[in-house]
Amino acid sequence: MIKLFPREESFLPQFARAAEIILEAAKALDQLAADFTDVELKVARIKHLEHEGDQVAHQTFGLLSRTWITPIDREDIHALVKALDDVLDYLDAAAARLVLYRIPAPTPALKLATAILVQSAEAILRASGLLGDLKNSAAILEICVEINRLENEADSLNRISIGKLFETEKDPIVLMKWKEIYEVLEAATDCCEDVANVFEQIVLKSS
Amino acid sequence: MIKLFPREESFLPQFARAAEIILEAAKALDQLAADFTDVELKVARIKHLEHEGDQVAHQTFGLLSRTWITPIDREDIHALVKALDDVLDYLDAAAARLVLYRIPAPTPALKLATAILVQSAEAILRASGLLGDLKNSAAILEICVEINRLENEADSLNRISIGKLFETEKDPIVLMKWKEIYEVLEAATDCCEDVANVFEQIVLKSS
Amino acid sequence: MIKLFPREESFLPQFARAAEIILEAAKALDQLAADFTDVELKVARIKHLEHEGDQVAHQTFGLLSRTWITPIDREDIHALVKALDDVLDYLDAAAARLVLYRIPAPTPALKLATAILVQSAEAILRASGLLGDLKNSAAILEICVEINRLENEADSLNRISIGKLFETEKDPIVLMKWKEIYEVLEAATDCCEDVANVFEQIVLKSS
Repeated sequence: MIKLFPREESFLPQFARAAEIILEAAKALDQLAADFTDVELKVARIKHLEHEGDQVAHQTFGLLSRTWITPIDREDIHALVKALDDVLDYLDAAAARLVLYRIPAPTPALKLATAILVQSAEAILRASGLLGDLKNSAAILEICVEINRLENEADSLNRISIGKLFETEKDPIVLMKWKEIYEVLEAATDCCEDVANVFEQIVLKSS
Repeated sequence: MIKLFPREESFLPQFARAAEIILEAAKALDQLAADFTDVELKVARIKHLEHEGDQVAHQTFGLLSRTWITPIDREDIHALVKALDDVLDYLDAAAARLVLYRIPAPTPALKLATAILVQSAEAILRASGLLGDLKNSAAILEICVEINRLENEADSLNRISIGKLFETEKDPIVLMKWKEIYEVLEAATDCCEDVANVFEQIVLKSS
Repeated sequence: MIKLFPREESFLPQFARAAEIILEAAKALDQLAADFTDVELKVARIKHLEHEGDQVAHQTFGLLSRTWITPIDREDIHALVKALDDVLDYLDAAAARLVLYRIPAPTPALKLATAILVQSAEAILRASGLLGDLKNSAAILEICVEINRLENEADSLNRISIGKLFETEKDPIVLMKWKEIYEVLEAATDCCEDVANVFEQIVLKSS
């Protein structure tokens, strides 16, 4: 069972697969925000993607358990799987709340937040495709800077959205619903930053 | 101070003790939901159990600091103590809110959630009793599947409870209180799943 | 790039710097609670401190990546940087909400909470100044006990503040705002306890 010299490729395709699923879920949420029809069906698809991501995470942890010497530090593999899984969980949590809270229509703030998430997910997928080669270090670090910038943007957007919500929304229950949706989306972007931080660690350690 | 060859028993009784305290607290909360009298007194007892759990966690971390070679990976011991402690923290947090928010009566959703927590706690205790022997690997993995199933059940229940709350409860402050209680209970079940995930890691690594 | 025998001093000044920034931010928040004028300006200063703290954390992680043999266990350095960063994040988050929610005036509960945070931050700074010498073990452990006591105090205060809020505040939106501010301040004190727990680990391992 124990592989003494696993090839680096064993883990990398797992990370790429997780990144692909995240991008698919972010795009699905963004498209839902743009075309708010068949909400339950589209949310169910995001839930399905979240389950797929769970399986990938589970497989990667299993692989980690059976691998003695890993190409990347064990703690970094663990942190990466966790962070990728968290992004997907929050994407699913945001989508689920659209149904659960019977949201009648999207807001401009929702659309802006999901657009940032698509960009972050694209950046994560690009970086995960570069991880296999040390020559790509500079390119990966650049993508990490971009993901950090997107997180700052999402953070500003979130504060503006919530500030506006408290100014204009007088129904406390409606306010509560949207506040939570914006916060969950912000949390998803935070987790994208966590992913970027692990990428950076991996690059720094190998340099 | 440093034990070169600690016997596996040093850590296992600590995990079993933590699991026993969790089961006791889950049962106390479940009984409170069934018989909603002397609420403050019963909540104080759960708080007391939480303090006991803190001491067990503290002792286990102390033992870990003084032990050089551990029978189980250090990171897994750390994660297990943390996850067990988190379950208890959330059980206590849910109980405390019943007093803090002056909840007048339990809801059917509360009773269902505490019943799932008792089942999860029983499963955790059973698994922790099997950890000492590699022959039990299959049985432990089966219990982990059960804990995951219970978490999915709690998750569905939580979504139904909160959906119903938003449909029927028109007082935003009452809604806020129950929403938080349901979410804290859900978080407790999530942490039971974290415990199961560490059990699984331990079994996979030793196989 | 890799330092085989880094001097302990490489990490300690980083921890001390982070602790200084935390104390500065806690004092700034406490002074804001005492003199509630120029709120936006004072909150912007705390945000600035949070950015400074981010840079220190980033540098320390960079140093950790380039250091092969560390004077303190890698996992403890990692946990310490994370916990110090979290304290600052929550201080900033509490301050930001005073502006975001257009809070008109501080409450006695706010002042009590920020006073506890100043005391906790002072204790953290004192302990971080003692880390360099094993002879200080007993003094560090004493400070950790004090930080734990302060966290219990903050926890009690939080429950009293929130209980009173639900009793007296009938506007659900105002209630929501203050509840969150109190909770974020409580979370900041929780993270001070996390810092103390890492200090304790470091001392126990080296004894």
